[in-house]
Amino acid sequence: MSLHDEMLEQPTVLAGLVRSSLEATTDAATILSRPDVVHAVIAARGTSDNAARYAKYVWGSLAGLSVTLAAPSLYGGYGTPPDLAGSAVVGISQSGQSPDLIAVVEEGRSQGRPTIAITNDPTSPLAAMADAVVPLAAGSERAVAATKTYTATLFAVAAIAAAMHPGLDRSEELAALPDAVAETLTAEAEIRAAAARFGPVRDCVVLGRGFNYATAFEWALKLQEMAYVLAHPFSTADFAHGPFAVLERHFPVLAVAMQGPMYGVTVEMLERMWRERAANLITITDDHELAGDSIVVPKVAEWLTPIPAIVAAQMFTLAMAELRGVDSENPRGLQKVTRTE
Amino acid sequence: MSLHDEMLEQPTVLAGLVRSSLEATTDAATILSRPDVVHAVIAARGTSDNAARYAKYVWGSLAGLSVTLAAPSLYGGYGTPPDLAGSAVVGISQSGQSPDLIAVVEEGRSQGRPTIAITNDPTSPLAAMADAVVPLAAGSERAVAATKTYTATLFAVAAIAAAMHPGLDRSEELAALPDAVAETLTAEAEIRAAAARFGPVRDCVVLGRGFNYATAFEWALKLQEMAYVLAHPFSTADFAHGPFAVLERHFPVLAVAMQGPMYGVTVEMLERMWRERAANLITITDDHELAGDSIVVPKVAEWLTPIPAIVAAQMFTLAMAELRGVDSENPRGLQKVTRTE
Repeated sequence: MSLHDEMLEQPTVLAGLVRSSLEATTDAATILSRPDVVHAVIAARGTSDNAARYAKYVWGSLAGLSVTLAAPSLYGGYGTPPDLAGSAVVGISQSGQSPDLIAVVEEGRSQGRPTIAITNDPTSPLAAMADAVVPLAAGSERAVAATKTYTATLFAVAAIAAAMHPGLDRSEELAALPDAVAETLTAEAEIRAAAARFGPVRDCVVLGRGFNYATAFEWALKLQEMAYVLAHPFSTADFAHGPFAVLERHFPVLAVAMQGPMYGVTVEMLERMWRERAANLITITDDHELAGDSIVVPKVAEWLTPIPAIVAAQMFTLAMAELRGVDSENPRGLQKVTRTE
Repeated sequence: MSLHDEMLEQPTVLAGLVRSSLEATTDAATILSRPDVVHAVIAARGTSDNAARYAKYVWGSLAGLSVTLAAPSLYGGYGTPPDLAGSAVVGISQSGQSPDLIAVVEEGRSQGRPTIAITNDPTSPLAAMADAVVPLAAGSERAVAATKTYTATLFAVAAIAAAMHPGLDRSEELAALPDAVAETLTAEAEIRAAAARFGPVRDCVVLGRGFNYATAFEWALKLQEMAYVLAHPFSTADFAHGPFAVLERHFPVLAVAMQGPMYGVTVEMLERMWRERAANLITITDDHELAGDSIVVPKVAEWLTPIPAIVAAQMFTLAMAELRGVDSENPRGLQKVTRTE
């Protein structure tokens, strides 16, 4: 089973979640909707931390829930965990093994707070610690670079957001995802051509905002671990504070710009890069009319755009790894399960 | 008044805060200690966002307060702010002008939550919106790259943490900072020599953890805006998840490693970089015994180490700008007050 095969499995994994995830995501949403829960603290690292970034936006925007990304070293290393009054504690981990994440969920439990695990291994120590477990049901993932477990995690996070607001039925929007992702995967030739035009860069910046702030981070992480590109993610807004200065002429820039409330300001920043720096710019978008070099993905509800967006970004990155002659199946210095303390 | 002059003013600014900040920081701490406040939501961008990262660790570690960095686009762009029950809302902004930050504090106010502004302009719109204002009293800062307002903000954040725990007198630890920073500034020749050994790099990674996670981000931002180095900050722990793969042999790595509970795991990662990749590595530390190429800063209480650390990092960065022939007084494409919406 190669990385490419695992990427191609994503429509099947998502279709499985459309069928089977309702009970577990409703349990998690019930916890997050308790009157004594005013915010969620999420512990995650690596790819799962990017899913947590998405949760911050989508639980905030669809369900009004305030979300904190935990600082794990306060719990383990310093041994001075914050008071978790009013919080539910959520651990997100593909393997459910990392000691520092387990320490955060354990602390929530010992402070009497409700806990949730989102994991691909419902028999893991993380799952054992949690009041509610949302299984990713993505099957075993062998490649070091997480692909299908990331989109499965995004789906779980999105379905929890929908279940927190049961009066508004979003099940059709969620059910449209497997087809949208399958259609994205058929664009492989077009995406490879875009990667070839972009060229085998050594470094680049990756921009996104709002729901797709998470996508910028995850795309950058894939570029780092699969293609050894020193990719640097930013919010389009933060980029205006300082980092804009690093842009030399023709600097490589990747961006995600989906139609919605943040589209105008995002496109404005991209135009400025093109105009002032002639940036080497490729954008993943759902707008067929967007000027410039774009990879167009099928349109889904805006809050779900990070799912087709990252699938296009994964394929782009695999093409980039080939251009750069990197063996993306066996990245140097990495193991599948990373234990940090 | 040049950037270098503003850096040299930092002991004076800090000494002023030691004398004058007690009342304002106590007011802010009183708000954050109210029984109906179980966590703080901080809105900030750019350099101030790095001070917010520090607040997350120091308010958590010293006062047990859970801290969220706000997602400003939920408030402005999407117009779907989260429920702020249980929160105090804190805006950090040198200028107090950015509309998206003001929108977060305004939302807190309209939800009946207490608000705090930490700003260098107590007459700014941000300050006008807040129940308590902590003035930075740093004098006017002309250079685009924030230096003295950053260390002043760190001081204010630290003093608020101390005031939340009035039973434990930390005033001597705070009062030691002006001298420690003055002593750091006398090491300019040694720091310049370290920059010359590091060389005029085009990109690098910057690592820190715990309290100095914020320092890694701020050092990277200075390198971007002052020296046009594509510097990429990471938590030492996150770096093990994926980004380690990008490290080619002799890759440039900057690190902050201060003695304390995270010191062992941080040094372990640095040794691994040196052993497996022969990384071009320079570390800011307070340990005279640390092997390898180090910039040693005076010892202060661990929770306050980000202040001397960033001063050494600012000087290193100014030297790097000169090595790279960059006019750090006038970074291309940036203005002093960045307005994002």
